Amino acid sequence: MKPKDNETFAYSKVTEETLRTLNNILGKENVLIDKETLERYSYDETPHGIHELPEVVVKPQKTEQVAEILKLADQKRIPVTFRGQGTGLSCGAVPIFGGLLISFERMNKIIEIDENNLMAVAEVGVILTDLRPEVEDRGLFYPADPGERTSSLGGNIATNAGGMNCVKYGKVRDYVLGLEVVIPSGKILQLGGKTVKRSSGYELMHLIIGSEGTLAAVTKVIIRLIKLPKLFITLYIPFRDMVGAFKSVSEILRNRITPTAIEFIEREVILETERKTGRRMPNHDAEAYLIIRLDGEDEPILFSEGEKISSICLENNALDILVADTKESQSKIWEIRSAFYENIVKNKDAEIIDTVIPPSSIPEFMTKVKSISTKYGVKILSYGHAGDGNIHIHPIRESLSKEEWYQKLPSVMDEIYKTSISFGGAISGEHGIGVSKKTYFQTEFDIEQIKLMKQIKMVFDPNNILNPGKIFD
Amino acid sequence: MKPKDNETFAYSKVTEETLRTLNNILGKENVLIDKETLERYSYDETPHGIHELPEVVVKPQKTEQVAEILKLADQKRIPVTFRGQGTGLSCGAVPIFGGLLISFERMNKIIEIDENNLMAVAEVGVILTDLRPEVEDRGLFYPADPGERTSSLGGNIATNAGGMNCVKYGKVRDYVLGLEVVIPSGKILQLGGKTVKRSSGYELMHLIIGSEGTLAAVTKVIIRLIKLPKLFITLYIPFRDMVGAFKSVSEILRNRITPTAIEFIEREVILETERKTGRRMPNHDAEAYLIIRLDGEDEPILFSEGEKISSICLENNALDILVADTKESQSKIWEIRSAFYENIVKNKDAEIIDTVIPPSSIPEFMTKVKSISTKYGVKILSYGHAGDGNIHIHPIRESLSKEEWYQKLPSVMDEIYKTSISFGGAISGEHGIGVSKKTYFQTEFDIEQIKLMKQIKMVFDPNNILNPGKIFD
Repeated sequence: MKPKDNETFAYSKVTEETLRTLNNILGKENVLIDKETLERYSYDETPHGIHELPEVVVKPQKTEQVAEILKLADQKRIPVTFRGQGTGLSCGAVPIFGGLLISFERMNKIIEIDENNLMAVAEVGVILTDLRPEVEDRGLFYPADPGERTSSLGGNIATNAGGMNCVKYGKVRDYVLGLEVVIPSGKILQLGGKTVKRSSGYELMHLIIGSEGTLAAVTKVIIRLIKLPKLFITLYIPFRDMVGAFKSVSEILRNRITPTAIEFIEREVILETERKTGRRMPNHDAEAYLIIRLDGEDEPILFSEGEKISSICLENNALDILVADTKESQSKIWEIRSAFYENIVKNKDAEIIDTVIPPSSIPEFMTKVKSISTKYGVKILSYGHAGDGNIHIHPIRESLSKEEWYQKLPSVMDEIYKTSISFGGAISGEHGIGVSKKTYFQTEFDIEQIKLMKQIKMVFDPNNILNPGKIFD
Repeated sequence: MKPKDNETFAYSKVTEETLRTLNNILGKENVLIDKETLERYSYDETPHGIHELPEVVVKPQKTEQVAEILKLADQKRIPVTFRGQGTGLSCGAVPIFGGLLISFERMNKIIEIDENNLMAVAEVGVILTDLRPEVEDRGLFYPADPGERTSSLGGNIATNAGGMNCVKYGKVRDYVLGLEVVIPSGKILQLGGKTVKRSSGYELMHLIIGSEGTLAAVTKVIIRLIKLPKLFITLYIPFRDMVGAFKSVSEILRNRITPTAIEFIEREVILETERKTGRRMPNHDAEAYLIIRLDGEDEPILFSEGEKISSICLENNALDILVADTKESQSKIWEIRSAFYENIVKNKDAEIIDTVIPPSSIPEFMTKVKSISTKYGVKILSYGHAGDGNIHIHPIRESLSKEEWYQKLPSVMDEIYKTSISFGGAISGEHGIGVSKKTYFQTEFDIEQIKLMKQIKMVFDPNNILNPGKIFD
């Protein structure tokens, strides 16, 4: 190995002296090294994700403090990992090289809801459940709606999060207008701003969105808001078979109907969630379900769209159409939907695949996933965002012995990812690559593209201190 | 100067041998060196923009040819400039270092309108006026609508073009899902794809959008389509004063009404256009006009929105509300709007400023622009996209002597740009930086940001052959 390479990974440890400097920057109470804290910040919500202790957890409250911390870490070559609420699903916030973990939980101020420009300015640690009411009380709407609503804006930006509403409203990237970021030199940069369009040089902001904390620390966000739709209805539709559900999705989109959300669920996911939550969902004879949300301004139009959807579904083996039009009945359905991950996967030996493919390829893709399941004798549960092609696929151990499971799992994962790529898909639709999808990531891109990414990483972070070991090595 | 710097700008000339190789790649008829052709490709539509002859104009028809050309140029260090339809307004397609000019006019195939996924795949040279009917005949809509509809997809991507519909539908970036690009090594890369969302590594695609041909050649595009709205109406609203027009825009947006487009025009622009085109627009007593387009699915809703807009405008000194609801009457208004640039600026001593600011700051900003006009005794005409904060401001020589004009112009431009920046604006909203806004570009960013951009440029194009001298030096 050449000295240069050695040097790149020769990180320093956090010393007493570094801790003293951090205390001076942040106050002692925001520099934590007790074992309990370090353990609490050593993992995220990835199923069976890795745990690695940081050497110190720091909790800045101001951008200037983040700048001082980064400058210090860069000078001393201490790895730095950023963390919002730790709800990530690819170990992106796990400090795999130890070092410094910056938790943004105290940078949680909503700075401004600008009703004149339909924008909000917020610190990066703001949690979606705190932002949403502030925005909606003013008749405004921030459509990005990841399954995990306790996630923070920063985490959402790190992974270009998607969620339920992508069919109609797109992903987080589509709503970010400006970012305040800090690069390792400690320099604070304002990217973008309160302008709706922009054609001024390279869009560093868009490069940083989705870069999983490997290029810069994001400290402040300007997001675009839209008008809150007046009406929402939710359809809960059980299907005799999975093929019928997917065919319905294709036909809905082909008929130029654009629901807010089209979620797909397999029966077993519903049953398991019922067992765990003790709550009952209607109709248990179905093999698969669609939950479809529509929004609009006019009740007759909304219901006529609902009727068109109903007849498409009934022609494709739907067993029933249940319409929820009150806020309460809709909330119930969506709460169950939000609980899937928590109840199905979290405490099991299970893996999570977040692949995204062209929406029209879902039926064929899911048939192949089923045959992979049969071929290896590994149970696979699926649900997800059928309207935008982003399906969450969970291989689950169940009755397999640990040995069988660990022997079969790599081939199952590999085949599913390769199938997805063969449809023109991507490894991750909204969770990011982090640590847990690094190997598969390389199958998506040719060497040349990864080489460009690595060189860009070196432009922003020449000492490789920012979230090292994530996305690629 | 260090040898390294010298080397960077030591471009080679196109030799007989290079021409022979190009002939082999493209066929003789697509390698042009006659004087007339070189002159025709030496400028774009920037008012009083620079003219610089390329040494050779080449017209590839396939991505593989583009790859061979770039590889050759990179090996020989010949500068390469890309050109779509040459409708740019910042000299972005002017080959200021001579060399090779690649015209994409023959790469003009619409490859696929994918009605299942609501996407289109097209070669980069496709012209918007060719794409639009293909899409709309299928009940689909590509909302990006730059004033210049004879522009190509490639040009639109190079500048992240905006246009009229940004208020509701956003800019070109929001509709690009995938790009096929070629980097100087001759390597062809597929960025993004037919997926609606994506969280797989750095978004090189978004970096290339808006990079004005300085990072890679774009050869193919995947765009997202939406459902074609059923109904459009257009309101033509004369105002006693400019302030009333801008106050109306703010109130419309604040009242959560989202028109497709809100265009602002000063009286003189209307008068001048009438003189040039011989066509008459109603009402000449107004100081300013708004043209507002609404779209939707339901006539009563659309008209009720139109009424809300009308009462807002009438409360703010509107003199009249003219409603166009037939296709023909609306087309007439929008044709006049499209003719502004052509008729007002093109053959005059005039400059073009394409600044963008937060929409709510327009009234205050325009008051300052007026006072800059008075201070220097330089006539300034304005029109543009009031709904998204992107105003086109034209200082015009008129009765000034050439000497006075050239003496005053730099200060006028400088003050307008600085005012824009002081409102948190950007130098360019949709035209790009090219050559003509390079000096002002530096006032928008701090050194650190421009340094990052330059380093990224070197990652993609280490020999600095791609559109050199654009955006920054």
